[in-house]
Amino acid sequence: MRALALRPLHPHSAELIEVPEPSGLGVLVRTLAVGICGTDREILDGEYGWAPPGRERLILGHESLGEVIEVEDGSSLRKGDLVVGIVRHPDPVPCPACAAGEFDMCRNGQYSEHGIKELDGFCRERFRLAEERLVRIDPKLRQSGVLLEPTSVVAKAWDHIERIGARTRSWSPRRVLVTGAGPIGLLASLLTRQRGCELHVYDRHEDGLKPELIKELGGEYHSSGLEALCGINADVVIECTGAASVVATVMSNNARSGIVCLTGLSSGTHRIKHDFTALNRAMVLENDVVFGTVNANRAHYEMAAAALAQAEPNWLGRLITRRVALTDWRNALESKEGDIKTVIDFCL
Amino acid sequence: MRALALRPLHPHSAELIEVPEPSGLGVLVRTLAVGICGTDREILDGEYGWAPPGRERLILGHESLGEVIEVEDGSSLRKGDLVVGIVRHPDPVPCPACAAGEFDMCRNGQYSEHGIKELDGFCRERFRLAEERLVRIDPKLRQSGVLLEPTSVVAKAWDHIERIGARTRSWSPRRVLVTGAGPIGLLASLLTRQRGCELHVYDRHEDGLKPELIKELGGEYHSSGLEALCGINADVVIECTGAASVVATVMSNNARSGIVCLTGLSSGTHRIKHDFTALNRAMVLENDVVFGTVNANRAHYEMAAAALAQAEPNWLGRLITRRVALTDWRNALESKEGDIKTVIDFCL
Repeated sequence: MRALALRPLHPHSAELIEVPEPSGLGVLVRTLAVGICGTDREILDGEYGWAPPGRERLILGHESLGEVIEVEDGSSLRKGDLVVGIVRHPDPVPCPACAAGEFDMCRNGQYSEHGIKELDGFCRERFRLAEERLVRIDPKLRQSGVLLEPTSVVAKAWDHIERIGARTRSWSPRRVLVTGAGPIGLLASLLTRQRGCELHVYDRHEDGLKPELIKELGGEYHSSGLEALCGINADVVIECTGAASVVATVMSNNARSGIVCLTGLSSGTHRIKHDFTALNRAMVLENDVVFGTVNANRAHYEMAAAALAQAEPNWLGRLITRRVALTDWRNALESKEGDIKTVIDFCL
Repeated sequence: MRALALRPLHPHSAELIEVPEPSGLGVLVRTLAVGICGTDREILDGEYGWAPPGRERLILGHESLGEVIEVEDGSSLRKGDLVVGIVRHPDPVPCPACAAGEFDMCRNGQYSEHGIKELDGFCRERFRLAEERLVRIDPKLRQSGVLLEPTSVVAKAWDHIERIGARTRSWSPRRVLVTGAGPIGLLASLLTRQRGCELHVYDRHEDGLKPELIKELGGEYHSSGLEALCGINADVVIECTGAASVVATVMSNNARSGIVCLTGLSSGTHRIKHDFTALNRAMVLENDVVFGTVNANRAHYEMAAAALAQAEPNWLGRLITRRVALTDWRNALESKEGDIKTVIDFCL
């Protein structure tokens, strides 16, 4: 069967190769789609990624959607079920967080991740995975269920926002600002509206699909410069750009007891001059919180599955702006104008 | 009776004046001691502070210790009880946080504060306060109970650290770094050791009382430059300096899932160049939290009273490095070499 593999840290070494059928135990899954994100592009560019121990090549792909084609006796899954693979696996000798099932909060970094770190990814025609590593999703999500993994990151973000907010009994966020309207920002916007909060979204793009999608959610779209963010006074900010100037701006401008959740990553070095005394003073006097979040554990995948099942299917489907056949993978891995989420569609 | 009053925003306008005996309802308290902190010095320098509405002068003092001399019928307080006044009062039309008793998290800034904002302080021979505005402390704290207010700030810091930490089930902090060994840093160190955590303390002073006090708590004292902080890898950092360079260093150097609690304030502007991309990246990939905290509500005063009652009395007493008579208040308000906490002692 075919798989998209590369030699980690070797730029542009990706190629479509023949690999043996998946062997061993576990549920056999036929891949329907694999989503592409910035991490995949970093791995492709040779900046990131680890092959499985003793091997040269890593199969790419961590945003998956598949269909169960073979189950073990006694499984709660059935043939035909739609499933998504959980990306991170704890080390066999787990840290306290991993031992509690909170591998997203791993304390020692000894985890592995499908398609990223020491475990083959899902960009292959079939894979086997232990049942507890698969999340079943609503059958109606056949078109957009590949968005589950990025949604799990947002579900974790909201889970932690709510847990941190609950440090005070009286916390009840009304106004939410999302910076960056890529897939994470749009899914964060969806989960924000599902909570009934007022939504503001900031992105550089002035027109096109992004403002439309936000408007359809009932949110307000801002693209006229960072200064506009200073007056929004949001109770919660979900930062999805990773851009230094945006991060510094949202850290300095939010409501009293405000919570800023950082989800975005950008690479490189960007030293900016910032008044740390003023930032510190504002954070102290206003009881502000800033926190970073990465990855998601099983509970967050389940929350994400519930959120996607509640979403308007047409809205969700429009986040996938390009579907590309596996043979055309080079095309999928390029960033193009107007892209939101590009998916390698195994049914094409 | 005598009171230390000043005209807010008029530098060095403080003077000892005669004021009428406290009238109205509430518990009558004889002042035993008033602690002096950086906020008092900012008010004295004309940088901060608000007089009560319609008045020119504000009586200074928010860190109090007093003895009940007259109670109303049905009071749970008795003559001779040691009490401390709660600094912040919510607005008569409270915000949701204030309505829940969490006036330390006030959302609209419409609170008042004894000795700081629109309410006379405790630096007067007697005051009256409603019973619910007084916290009773252990009779053995006659010498050091004036430390209750700064301890309440630290009790709130630890309360929020623990609530934020509990966003994951597996959180269990082992190593704590306290930056700054002033009164807040030393009291934070005390509460850290009361929780059984490993304690590291950073301060500029190489010798004298501070290293001794930390050593007696069983902590490790560091004074050899900020670089030393990078290797400590603390699960929790309690930042008590407010200094831009220290804040930037601790935000960038802590353990995975680390929590940095900012309690320190410094004035002025200090623009430092910092790599925000790297800071953001580390916070995201390591699930880090940074939060600010100010003030304390009644629950935190009660926690602080319990913490002080458990502390070693001699250790606590040594935090008060100068006791000055009310007539000598100018002396008390000056910062002197070797000062930790200076107290105006009404019994001298």
